Amino acid sequence: MVNIQLVRNLSQKTDTKIVMVVVDGIGGLPYPGIGRTALEEANTPNLDNLAAISSCGLAEPVALGITPGSGPSHLALFGYDPLKHEIGRGVLEALGVGLKLGPSDVAARGNFCTVDDSGVITDRRAGRIPTEENQRLIEALRSVTVEGVEVILEPGKFHRFVVVFRGDGLSGELDDTDPQHVGERPKDAAARTPEAAYTAGLVNQWIAKVKKALRNEYPANMVLLRGFAGLPKIPSMSQAFKLTPAAIAGYPMYRGLARLVGMEILETGSDIKDEIETLKAHFGEHDFFYVHVKDTDSSGEDGDLRRKVEVIQEFDSHVPSILDLEPDVLIVTGDHSTPAKMKGHSWHPVPFLIYSQWVRPQGVREFGESMCAKGNLGVFPSLGALPLALAHALKLGKFGA
Amino acid sequence: MVNIQLVRNLSQKTDTKIVMVVVDGIGGLPYPGIGRTALEEANTPNLDNLAAISSCGLAEPVALGITPGSGPSHLALFGYDPLKHEIGRGVLEALGVGLKLGPSDVAARGNFCTVDDSGVITDRRAGRIPTEENQRLIEALRSVTVEGVEVILEPGKFHRFVVVFRGDGLSGELDDTDPQHVGERPKDAAARTPEAAYTAGLVNQWIAKVKKALRNEYPANMVLLRGFAGLPKIPSMSQAFKLTPAAIAGYPMYRGLARLVGMEILETGSDIKDEIETLKAHFGEHDFFYVHVKDTDSSGEDGDLRRKVEVIQEFDSHVPSILDLEPDVLIVTGDHSTPAKMKGHSWHPVPFLIYSQWVRPQGVREFGESMCAKGNLGVFPSLGALPLALAHALKLGKFGA
Repeated sequence: MVNIQLVRNLSQKTDTKIVMVVVDGIGGLPYPGIGRTALEEANTPNLDNLAAISSCGLAEPVALGITPGSGPSHLALFGYDPLKHEIGRGVLEALGVGLKLGPSDVAARGNFCTVDDSGVITDRRAGRIPTEENQRLIEALRSVTVEGVEVILEPGKFHRFVVVFRGDGLSGELDDTDPQHVGERPKDAAARTPEAAYTAGLVNQWIAKVKKALRNEYPANMVLLRGFAGLPKIPSMSQAFKLTPAAIAGYPMYRGLARLVGMEILETGSDIKDEIETLKAHFGEHDFFYVHVKDTDSSGEDGDLRRKVEVIQEFDSHVPSILDLEPDVLIVTGDHSTPAKMKGHSWHPVPFLIYSQWVRPQGVREFGESMCAKGNLGVFPSLGALPLALAHALKLGKFGA
Repeated sequence: MVNIQLVRNLSQKTDTKIVMVVVDGIGGLPYPGIGRTALEEANTPNLDNLAAISSCGLAEPVALGITPGSGPSHLALFGYDPLKHEIGRGVLEALGVGLKLGPSDVAARGNFCTVDDSGVITDRRAGRIPTEENQRLIEALRSVTVEGVEVILEPGKFHRFVVVFRGDGLSGELDDTDPQHVGERPKDAAARTPEAAYTAGLVNQWIAKVKKALRNEYPANMVLLRGFAGLPKIPSMSQAFKLTPAAIAGYPMYRGLARLVGMEILETGSDIKDEIETLKAHFGEHDFFYVHVKDTDSSGEDGDLRRKVEVIQEFDSHVPSILDLEPDVLIVTGDHSTPAKMKGHSWHPVPFLIYSQWVRPQGVREFGESMCAKGNLGVFPSLGALPLALAHALKLGKFGA
């Protein structure tokens, strides 16, 4: 059982340092013809040695049988119950393209689409227009203005973009304009609450002007918006846990997730090597470091066991550099499993390792799903990762006399 | 952790098929002089082979240290929190004798008892009259009528029977008439809520007429009723989990429990062989099958380890026939433990096995309490069985982006 409120109440500032490495999608399933997971198949002498002097277990991201997206699974590792703090689709998309959101911004995911002369949708993705065409259209739409609100646009791939409405008194409580079916008209952005009526009015004005601006741009002659959302109200890790946290992540979405919980975002490159260099360079400045390794997840999503094995081996080669920094606590885990066999995220609990002078060591020189299943931490919620980190860094006071 | 509301929200209809075999009371304790549980003592080559390619663990029916009845322990396996959905004693008894209850029926457990001339109870069980005598008396009482309500009676063994009151506007919120002690008078059926006053009036009228009808039937010259209850309000498995479930159970109570959650009840015999034949015959028609094996529990209750071993071995011999059907998910577990050493249900968590192409296989060729205690699923709530089944059948969508 995890009690985050109690952890917050008992947390205290100390000089000890925590490094939490999130190897995205690290967990897997035995791969057909190989019979081992990527982590088991990988040659990881450093992680194996570390496991022997660490405590191990399996971390369950959200709940039994639940496959999480990156948002909820990261929130859990950062010490926020993902069932209480949901991140809207629009916000996650904005984070994914590197937009920085303010507290009263409302973000949404956009699609270019095709409508016929009567305004009925004939293609919800405008024939998946080339990304360059998308960029040209977004550039043109940046001159469409609505009084009372700033509109920020960022193109994505093909027909996708992100829109952020910035201004006073905005609310993300709006229904999608995307009816999800061809043969229907785009819907108005309808307010779900009285407070959102003002925002709905502004958004609908903007859409009307956009429609006019796009009228000769067939097939991308209209837009659909969905997943309107403002930033979730989350206390920072500094407020909640008395930490001075920093994030080292090569990909925008993970920097965005870290910013959501108040981490300082350190400039870094996209290689693991760059990230470790960044960790070294800033190790004196913070007491909590989130380090994100992305390509285990992308290779898992691609069903590419070999590549996933290579990424794990590459990370393994940097483990000694992390240990050289002498962190008081080092956690190596993932946000969720991404078995190459499934080519996607899955519900399987995630290998977890915590190293500190205060652990009960596992004694087994092998970091993998099978060993972690027999680990002395058992199967526990990912939400317990931060409490374990704080405890092993001696950052939690005693409960009761 | 199990979050059933989330599982409901994420569940989706697919063509995959789940078979959940509930080997009633399968869990046990090492038997004196043998040192092994019935499951460990049994020769189960098929279950052992299956365990090696399955994920295993121990399922805890209700909570640590809690010994459950069949009602709550089955509800948990079907995906319903047994602490939120209580099944009244009367309802369970009615299901046990095969009565089909309607939504406004009120059922109660009855005892024939003995009262003296002043109406004071001298024997709460009427000297445990023979079952044949019970049947004769019940037949006679079927002619006792009360205006506004239909009364359905079904004899049980010795002094026991079940009564169902059927009519409009009835409520099960009534106190027992059984004072639980000799030397007291039977109590009136007292209404616990204002809405139940009408029902109390009808029930007390019926009892008064029954007392008169039984006045010359010493020792069975009065009745005591307890456990008044109507059907619990439970969404069907179809509503809750988008399943089309079917139950294959030889004993009435288990068919009744399955009917409570909206399963279709398939006609079958009382042998395991009959049940497997029924599964084969209907395998195309449903996507979830609950198969109940009863005699592991009854032999455990009798303290008959040998018989329990035989029943387990008999079930084991049918495992290949189940696998021949190629279910996407096969679960083998029990609703609770019934150690022969204890001659009754117990609180010990229950051996659990889930087989699917998406499991992390256990790799150990042995299905039993000790191996499951080291299983990669750990100890988890029985309420997680259905979420695990749905996840491994790919019937759950992703949570969050």
